Amino acid sequence: MASYYGKKLVINLFGESHGPAVGITMDGLPTGFEIDEVELRNFMDRRASGNSDLTTQRKEADLPEFISGIFQGKTCGTPLTILIRNGDAKSEDYGELHDVPRPGHADYTNHIRLSGDEDYRSGGHSSARLTAALTAGGGIAKQMLEDWGITVDAKLIEVDGNSENFDEIIAAAKEEGDSVGGIIECTIKGVPAGFGDPIFDGIENRFSQMIFAIPAVKGIEFGDGFQLARMKGSESNDAFDFDEEGKVITLTNHQGGILGGIANGMDIVFRVAFKPTPSISKTQQSISYSKGEVVELQVKGRHDPCVALRGVPVVEAAAAITMLDFLL
Amino acid sequence: MASYYGKKLVINLFGESHGPAVGITMDGLPTGFEIDEVELRNFMDRRASGNSDLTTQRKEADLPEFISGIFQGKTCGTPLTILIRNGDAKSEDYGELHDVPRPGHADYTNHIRLSGDEDYRSGGHSSARLTAALTAGGGIAKQMLEDWGITVDAKLIEVDGNSENFDEIIAAAKEEGDSVGGIIECTIKGVPAGFGDPIFDGIENRFSQMIFAIPAVKGIEFGDGFQLARMKGSESNDAFDFDEEGKVITLTNHQGGILGGIANGMDIVFRVAFKPTPSISKTQQSISYSKGEVVELQVKGRHDPCVALRGVPVVEAAAAITMLDFLL
Amino acid sequence: MASYYGKKLVINLFGESHGPAVGITMDGLPTGFEIDEVELRNFMDRRASGNSDLTTQRKEADLPEFISGIFQGKTCGTPLTILIRNGDAKSEDYGELHDVPRPGHADYTNHIRLSGDEDYRSGGHSSARLTAALTAGGGIAKQMLEDWGITVDAKLIEVDGNSENFDEIIAAAKEEGDSVGGIIECTIKGVPAGFGDPIFDGIENRFSQMIFAIPAVKGIEFGDGFQLARMKGSESNDAFDFDEEGKVITLTNHQGGILGGIANGMDIVFRVAFKPTPSISKTQQSISYSKGEVVELQVKGRHDPCVALRGVPVVEAAAAITMLDFLL
Amino acid sequence: MASYYGKKLVINLFGESHGPAVGITMDGLPTGFEIDEVELRNFMDRRASGNSDLTTQRKEADLPEFISGIFQGKTCGTPLTILIRNGDAKSEDYGELHDVPRPGHADYTNHIRLSGDEDYRSGGHSSARLTAALTAGGGIAKQMLEDWGITVDAKLIEVDGNSENFDEIIAAAKEEGDSVGGIIECTIKGVPAGFGDPIFDGIENRFSQMIFAIPAVKGIEFGDGFQLARMKGSESNDAFDFDEEGKVITLTNHQGGILGGIANGMDIVFRVAFKPTPSISKTQQSISYSKGEVVELQVKGRHDPCVALRGVPVVEAAAAITMLDFLL
Repeated sequence: MASYYGKKLVINLFGESHGPAVGITMDGLPTGFEIDEVELRNFMDRRASGNSDLTTQRKEADLPEFISGIFQGKTCGTPLTILIRNGDAKSEDYGELHDVPRPGHADYTNHIRLSGDEDYRSGGHSSARLTAALTAGGGIAKQMLEDWGITVDAKLIEVDGNSENFDEIIAAAKEEGDSVGGIIECTIKGVPAGFGDPIFDGIENRFSQMIFAIPAVKGIEFGDGFQLARMKGSESNDAFDFDEEGKVITLTNHQGGILGGIANGMDIVFRVAFKPTPSISKTQQSISYSKGEVVELQVKGRHDPCVALRGVPVVEAAAAITMLDFLL
Repeated sequence: MASYYGKKLVINLFGESHGPAVGITMDGLPTGFEIDEVELRNFMDRRASGNSDLTTQRKEADLPEFISGIFQGKTCGTPLTILIRNGDAKSEDYGELHDVPRPGHADYTNHIRLSGDEDYRSGGHSSARLTAALTAGGGIAKQMLEDWGITVDAKLIEVDGNSENFDEIIAAAKEEGDSVGGIIECTIKGVPAGFGDPIFDGIENRFSQMIFAIPAVKGIEFGDGFQLARMKGSESNDAFDFDEEGKVITLTNHQGGILGGIANGMDIVFRVAFKPTPSISKTQQSISYSKGEVVELQVKGRHDPCVALRGVPVVEAAAAITMLDFLL
Repeated sequence: MASYYGKKLVINLFGESHGPAVGITMDGLPTGFEIDEVELRNFMDRRASGNSDLTTQRKEADLPEFISGIFQGKTCGTPLTILIRNGDAKSEDYGELHDVPRPGHADYTNHIRLSGDEDYRSGGHSSARLTAALTAGGGIAKQMLEDWGITVDAKLIEVDGNSENFDEIIAAAKEEGDSVGGIIECTIKGVPAGFGDPIFDGIENRFSQMIFAIPAVKGIEFGDGFQLARMKGSESNDAFDFDEEGKVITLTNHQGGILGGIANGMDIVFRVAFKPTPSISKTQQSISYSKGEVVELQVKGRHDPCVALRGVPVVEAAAAITMLDFLL
Repeated sequence: MASYYGKKLVINLFGESHGPAVGITMDGLPTGFEIDEVELRNFMDRRASGNSDLTTQRKEADLPEFISGIFQGKTCGTPLTILIRNGDAKSEDYGELHDVPRPGHADYTNHIRLSGDEDYRSGGHSSARLTAALTAGGGIAKQMLEDWGITVDAKLIEVDGNSENFDEIIAAAKEEGDSVGGIIECTIKGVPAGFGDPIFDGIENRFSQMIFAIPAVKGIEFGDGFQLARMKGSESNDAFDFDEEGKVITLTNHQGGILGGIANGMDIVFRVAFKPTPSISKTQQSISYSKGEVVELQVKGRHDPCVALRGVPVVEAAAAITMLDFLL
């Protein structure tokens, strides 16, 4: 029961990396909305692999197949289900993983949790492949938000500790059979003050519950985040003022547009830490369950040297779904 | 419906800072557990104010009153409700706040969200006062976890960017009518591998949903967190090994004991960023709703110059509740 | 986690029959609503015992104590918690029940479910005493619904198979140390067409989930209910028409105002079957856990000979809470 | 968000009667279970149309397509999604229904609720077609329960008020272009005492929330149900005893195996009232939205003269899912 998320807009992710398909069901979408399928395809292409030398070479057509929830081209108020077939999957690459877990991956923890019954091929349900379905759903949410005048934009602001020359850094890591981490910053513009809820359902709470569903995410901060812990109150408090039209604003935005879990009308800003892709071709130390001994592992298969690169539209998608849930 | 949290152990916080009481209801606790009330009182005292020159001077007895869920001294399998009466509250200090919101506080956002019907006295339901109830509940969860061999310990590791001399830094800020932020690190020992759930209900997801319920928290990171984004995969992947008893371990713990949202048997480690207390006595710029103009505000009342100081047991309490929910 | 109910208005019942108090927390109520406390008291008095020879002689003042959620006499948008202290409880009457379960009661099933740790005094959390808290919450919901032009009225339509002379039938049962069942019909007027949800959250689904929370309820039917199963489609289908103002109506109301789980604008009508009070003073066969043998049991204590009598305002309260949840 | 159900086993239904497919996702199933697909197909055939002269002539192959959650023939601990393609659907039969709602159907209420954006073809998401997906999921749950020694069996016990000669009664109704209702009784054997939860999550509460999701259900009763309301307590209380092996039993089972919402170890018994199929070929009075006037309607298309007939495996499926959720 861990694949569900949301309050008014409930989403559900299903599928395994090497099963027939991955998919998403979204229940609670507004009715009468006409999805721009070309725009959706373009958005999903931003995430899809094969478009760049710097991402995995696995080819995914990733055409979304609408199963339900659409009538005469518009959302009809019932659960919208999208399937994305798994095409170019080479399962034979993963046989060894049932016995030797990849360091930094969920192989070992899924093995223990599911008593050995897990689909071990490329992480199964824990695979980043699931983010294709999340991106499809988020692409729709993003289009709907635009109708409310709300935009969601993420960008990669740091790779392996650097704030520029990302392509070179990633290419070098790939060359070495290694991988690098990165930081993504997401900005949501146009959210009116007052949206959000106190205590457990604040914007920070629900965004973080969503964002940590993206594989490889290990940290999140809102506004100036950890840097706020190094400020004085007289520095971090954003002074209130009125803009020219009499709307309440703050002169700075250290709080990232959120006070007490609720939007204050300024841009909502958060940053997400992605760890390096755990699948690397460099030789690593692992264990063999069957032999009960330490073994060397060289992960085969095709992998992104920087998962954060493809994470940008995924973060946007995740943020759009969460934001839409707040607004409904 | 934002004051509920949990799956198998559902908790609910209620009360306002200056109402009759704050409280917590916990539904789903194990039965037959004898709460050590002295230990609980001691734990709550760690959070309570008035014990130090460096916290607010508001005196709170904070005696937990058990309303339900206890029979013959033991948990009896029904919702356990605890009340903590609000004693020494000076409401008159807060009258101005209905018209002039405090920068960095939820005053403005609650005002918009609740159309002016909010209890504006000291943040009402958004007040840090609610953490007294959370701490009571968490103190019970902590005792229960100890029966399973699981310990939860938090400590303040940074204040205003410094890793030592906290008392002096906080005292200086207080002297200036200002406040400082801080970082708390929490370590959970003894969680067996396999606990946790994938996707939206991973350990990171559910801990962060809980931890951001603590007022002033603006960031969370697990394991090496944001530092992981600056590592190579060959550095961040924790190599598997066996310990002397044949138990699977990792040689390092960059992942903070969590892989794919699921515990791997190593210590669970996370850090939390607390912003500086927004209530400061220094003069700040705010606005007056009634006048429609910018005004100067000097926040009266008694406030902690470093809310992170009292946050230590609160983080432990929050973590203990979440961990217990996973184990049930 | 079984004491929670609702989607947008989440309620939580806590307390045991012979503990310090019973209570309710309601999260999600509209803000700025002024509760008429006199009217609430009157509503609760309809349920309270001691007002009639035909109900239990246990005296309950049942004054609702507001703990949170009210500010300056109005709902302030935070969880509203009400306590009702347990006054005149004679626990000594119930000692035997820990060893000898009462037939028709939850004593045995709670004993098994809670491994012997249950509060066995008068059913503990399963006691009809909890309906005092439900009635307090429902009384508030009822007042709020009236502001929307919606009324909720229940009446006893059958006792022990008879549709009149209820007082005599109940008095006779009491005289014999026995009890009788009854049927309550509830009518909700003024619900606009379109409220409700499909599949699992239809009006029937959510009303029934709520109504079966009332102890002693064993059946529920909507509209003509079981009688519909004995009709032809040409009889049971309610023909559509327009009223004088052009509003869509149906000429009959066999469906009880509900089509596909959604209100059609006609009166919502349902009936509830209450079994006879299981606590009777007549000698009954039970078992002794400690002796492992069959024993005779004569239930002491004071009991209603017809629990359906006091069930009328409880059904109204339960229906009002559910209806309000749909409308929010 | 109304298409979700469950606590530990969360299910989600999606699809429309005349869309590409209907489907179910089940999250929380036990791992390592090998589904007997032949048995599942046979179970689904019991529901499928076209097998009898007495059900609708629409042909449905209803082959379940497994999308996720199965690995190497066994459940692998991730959400299990099944699609059932919609084959022989004649949408042109339903064009008129967008303007003229069928009496007794959800056409009108969906139209109002979804502001005219509903998929009006044969009820869309509200169609009995969705029970194909529910039956697929329930068939799996039924197989799993059998491993625990629990059986779920339903039977038609009454049609149009008669307890025999069902075929003749239904055939006669069909001949007249009319339909008839019926009553189904379901018995669950083998549930150990102690399963179930108090208050809102009792067996009655959760079974009824599920069962009313089946289209055409208008009433439910447990044990002797409404008949209990016509008994004395001395008659309805089931006396406790021990069986030959020392297990606690009751000598009668008026309570239907449930006390206080919790199983007492006896057979769980409930009855469900199905109204007559609302779609009848007899001329009925309805309205035209566009004309704003009363019109005559003759429903075209192929319909079951007694929906309760096909309801038998659907009730079993629904009961099996709910029971499994309690046991997990």
